[in-house]
Amino acid sequence: MGQLLHPTLDPKAKKVVLAKGLPASPGAASGQVVFDSETAVEWVKHGLKVILVRLETSPEDILGMNISQGILTSRGGMTSHAAVVARGMGKCCIVGCGMMRVDVEAKAFYVGDQIVRQGDWVTIDGTTGEVMLGQVATVKPELSQDFTTFMKWVDKYRVLKVRTNADTPLDSKTARSFGAEGIGLCRTEHMFFAEDRIRAVREMILATTQEGRLKALQKILPMQRSDFVEIFREMKGLPVTIRLLDPPLHEFLPHTEDELKQLSQSMGVDYLVLKQKYDSLKEFNPMLGHRGCRLGVTFPEIYDIQVRAVIEAASLLIKNENQKIIPEIMIPLVGHANELKVMREQVEATCRLVQSEQKVKFKVLIGTMIELPRAALTADEIAPYADFFSFGTNDLTQTTFGLSRDDANKFVPGYIEQKIFTDDPFVTLDRNGVGALIKMCRDKGRGVVPDLKLGICGEHGGDPRSVSFCHEIGLDYVSCSPYRVPIAKLSAAHSALLSSQKGKV
Amino acid sequence: MGQLLHPTLDPKAKKVVLAKGLPASPGAASGQVVFDSETAVEWVKHGLKVILVRLETSPEDILGMNISQGILTSRGGMTSHAAVVARGMGKCCIVGCGMMRVDVEAKAFYVGDQIVRQGDWVTIDGTTGEVMLGQVATVKPELSQDFTTFMKWVDKYRVLKVRTNADTPLDSKTARSFGAEGIGLCRTEHMFFAEDRIRAVREMILATTQEGRLKALQKILPMQRSDFVEIFREMKGLPVTIRLLDPPLHEFLPHTEDELKQLSQSMGVDYLVLKQKYDSLKEFNPMLGHRGCRLGVTFPEIYDIQVRAVIEAASLLIKNENQKIIPEIMIPLVGHANELKVMREQVEATCRLVQSEQKVKFKVLIGTMIELPRAALTADEIAPYADFFSFGTNDLTQTTFGLSRDDANKFVPGYIEQKIFTDDPFVTLDRNGVGALIKMCRDKGRGVVPDLKLGICGEHGGDPRSVSFCHEIGLDYVSCSPYRVPIAKLSAAHSALLSSQKGKV
Repeated sequence: MGQLLHPTLDPKAKKVVLAKGLPASPGAASGQVVFDSETAVEWVKHGLKVILVRLETSPEDILGMNISQGILTSRGGMTSHAAVVARGMGKCCIVGCGMMRVDVEAKAFYVGDQIVRQGDWVTIDGTTGEVMLGQVATVKPELSQDFTTFMKWVDKYRVLKVRTNADTPLDSKTARSFGAEGIGLCRTEHMFFAEDRIRAVREMILATTQEGRLKALQKILPMQRSDFVEIFREMKGLPVTIRLLDPPLHEFLPHTEDELKQLSQSMGVDYLVLKQKYDSLKEFNPMLGHRGCRLGVTFPEIYDIQVRAVIEAASLLIKNENQKIIPEIMIPLVGHANELKVMREQVEATCRLVQSEQKVKFKVLIGTMIELPRAALTADEIAPYADFFSFGTNDLTQTTFGLSRDDANKFVPGYIEQKIFTDDPFVTLDRNGVGALIKMCRDKGRGVVPDLKLGICGEHGGDPRSVSFCHEIGLDYVSCSPYRVPIAKLSAAHSALLSSQKGKV
Repeated sequence: MGQLLHPTLDPKAKKVVLAKGLPASPGAASGQVVFDSETAVEWVKHGLKVILVRLETSPEDILGMNISQGILTSRGGMTSHAAVVARGMGKCCIVGCGMMRVDVEAKAFYVGDQIVRQGDWVTIDGTTGEVMLGQVATVKPELSQDFTTFMKWVDKYRVLKVRTNADTPLDSKTARSFGAEGIGLCRTEHMFFAEDRIRAVREMILATTQEGRLKALQKILPMQRSDFVEIFREMKGLPVTIRLLDPPLHEFLPHTEDELKQLSQSMGVDYLVLKQKYDSLKEFNPMLGHRGCRLGVTFPEIYDIQVRAVIEAASLLIKNENQKIIPEIMIPLVGHANELKVMREQVEATCRLVQSEQKVKFKVLIGTMIELPRAALTADEIAPYADFFSFGTNDLTQTTFGLSRDDANKFVPGYIEQKIFTDDPFVTLDRNGVGALIKMCRDKGRGVVPDLKLGICGEHGGDPRSVSFCHEIGLDYVSCSPYRVPIAKLSAAHSALLSSQKGKV
């Protein structure tokens, strides 16, 4: 069904397959190869079509990814940055194409003896993982009337709600056109990366006082507010769950010495000061580092400004456009009840303050991601501070298995081949391990807060078998990439029909 | 009590405290500052006493750490590499001394305006975390007759056994002199880092075929065998748990471009080939990467050679020295029963093969570390393949909290100050989260294998409150650094006396 929503290769076209990687995001596209985001942006400005080829992508590549026809990386697994972002954008993507050796400096990649240089045409098929030389013809999908009728049947039988992971007004619009019933995960870090904001973000990181950080954050406030205004407007009163800043701060600094030097010049900051800051932020295991609510605890002003942006945006629409909005503010990476306790008090105080400034009163829900085993194990301690739990199953899978999604590709394919794993746990939710934690969390959480709203917002929300699991254990909703909404709805209907015969787990 | 076993500052001596870090390993020592292992080794050869100062240590620093008077790092937490290794060596150590800015290239460190250059004298107190300029007098401890008598009383009341974490014959001897009842964790990676072996290890890493890897491993075999012979001999029939290779392979390659170039010359390997290998092994989150039994599954020959070395060593001592040895082979980082199933079959086959070659028959126990939440959650699936479980509480704490022990120092001190955490979870075992997993694992594991032997071998094994927990939940033993054995024994006796009044949890 996923194939119906994306361009596919013309079955009549001839193709020469050069390499094969992981089919990270469906669809097919041709373009001229570029090796960095800046070139992508420049070439597209001149009317060219490009395929962005990288070792792996990082949040700084967002702009380039967004305007490319497709993305191809030599590293990373099904939930690597490239894969997740591409699926969110509905853009075809192949990751973990290990047969390919990318030399960014030489602006070329190699597969055996074959060299592909910048500007060469390639076609990639994100549904099969195949990389082809040259331009292979594709055919566009059409959302027919049949599709609309079919989805109506699906909606009739479904119990589980389906929301979407969307960070931009465009994502939100796409998702709504596919029938999303709200946003289950609006990541706010992308709002920090945009070209017009990254400088202020970096000023904030480099500031040595809370005052300095606040001053920089004030510059971002109006921009974040207008992001939220647009997203709320697009979602027309449907629930929107906004996750406060999650990634470690070093992700917002450039990584190479050259880039750091450039930055030091453009910001007028001594290179050594910048380098020392960079070094002091560097982490051995960023996934397990100073991120999520840990940032919120250390730098309360960051979350303060974000909450202010959300509440101001909602206030504007409620007052001026008569919209009904109940913002859902989500605190990431909680592992201990005290973290949520402290954060909740802070968020509530900001909500009260802004609402009194704006002279308007409305309800705000405050909840948390459950993405660490300890959060699930102590859900009864955490639940009293939460209006909802949203399972971040990507991270929960990482920590439960002790397995980095960006590094898993080195051996997980071998594990599947040897039948040690039946499935890639980042694609299909692991029922016995991660699933057991989720059920434990459900029982402990609803044990103290019976009407606790439960959903998932990991990549699993778009995987049929994982959606079945979510239905079986009585979650309220799943949230997935916009282009996966119809599939998730179909799976939810399917599971409902099945369980009406079998009863719940 | 820990203080009784190490040199302390002479209370009459004057001291000027320059900086303060985390007290990672007790004792006090003076020495001239050096900034790298090679200099440490050279200066000590010339009769000097040195304090090794680093940003952080890595396994390549082992030699330098071993011959230094003490270790001081600006980064890292209580269970960083420097901290763990120093405690194992009974050497004083301060980590996470963030007030200090280390510039390895300039061979100097800075605290405010104060510069300390290579060759300057400093004194460090690993019991308080204080760094002092110059030489401050210390006093040596004496193990008195009183101590021996006291430990006899302690042993009378104790139920929990106390083993040690020891990787060398010297560690083993020290631990036995403190009363260790076996080795609970013999890490084998240190055996790969020794100067006479690292070359063969690197040949193995660079080999592109299984044959090539086997050839390189064959060079390491006799050396590992003699390590095990000496350790078994030192332990005189007490149980010895040997953990097969755990760290990711990139830890065995140098990390800077210069060092890689040097290595390419000394090994006669093309720099680009080496660099490409290095890049291909690099990981985003090494703690969650291609390590532990994942290496054993991908490269079975590595574990094969290690098991062969263990069984050959035991065979020699059993045949020639009439020793009673039951080797305990421990598979690290199991997260799925199938991993242990496959590994156990392989280890058993090698044991049978070597025993038949050596014409001797003896029992070998095969077990696993429980260091991933998923292993604890699915202990009933894993237990049928295990003779014992050993909780690796360092890693289990990392994954349960989603918290890298090497990065935790950036915010955990703030968490403790703000009372979000009552204790550093890497120092005192977290009962509600990690402890809940351990109890669940105990119940699930013993539910299918009632006589399953259970122990812990994380750093918590030397922390009094964590030892109490282990006693309360009915573990068989704890294993800790040699110098912590007396403290662990005392805590075990304490807990036994208490619980004889209260009954078990």
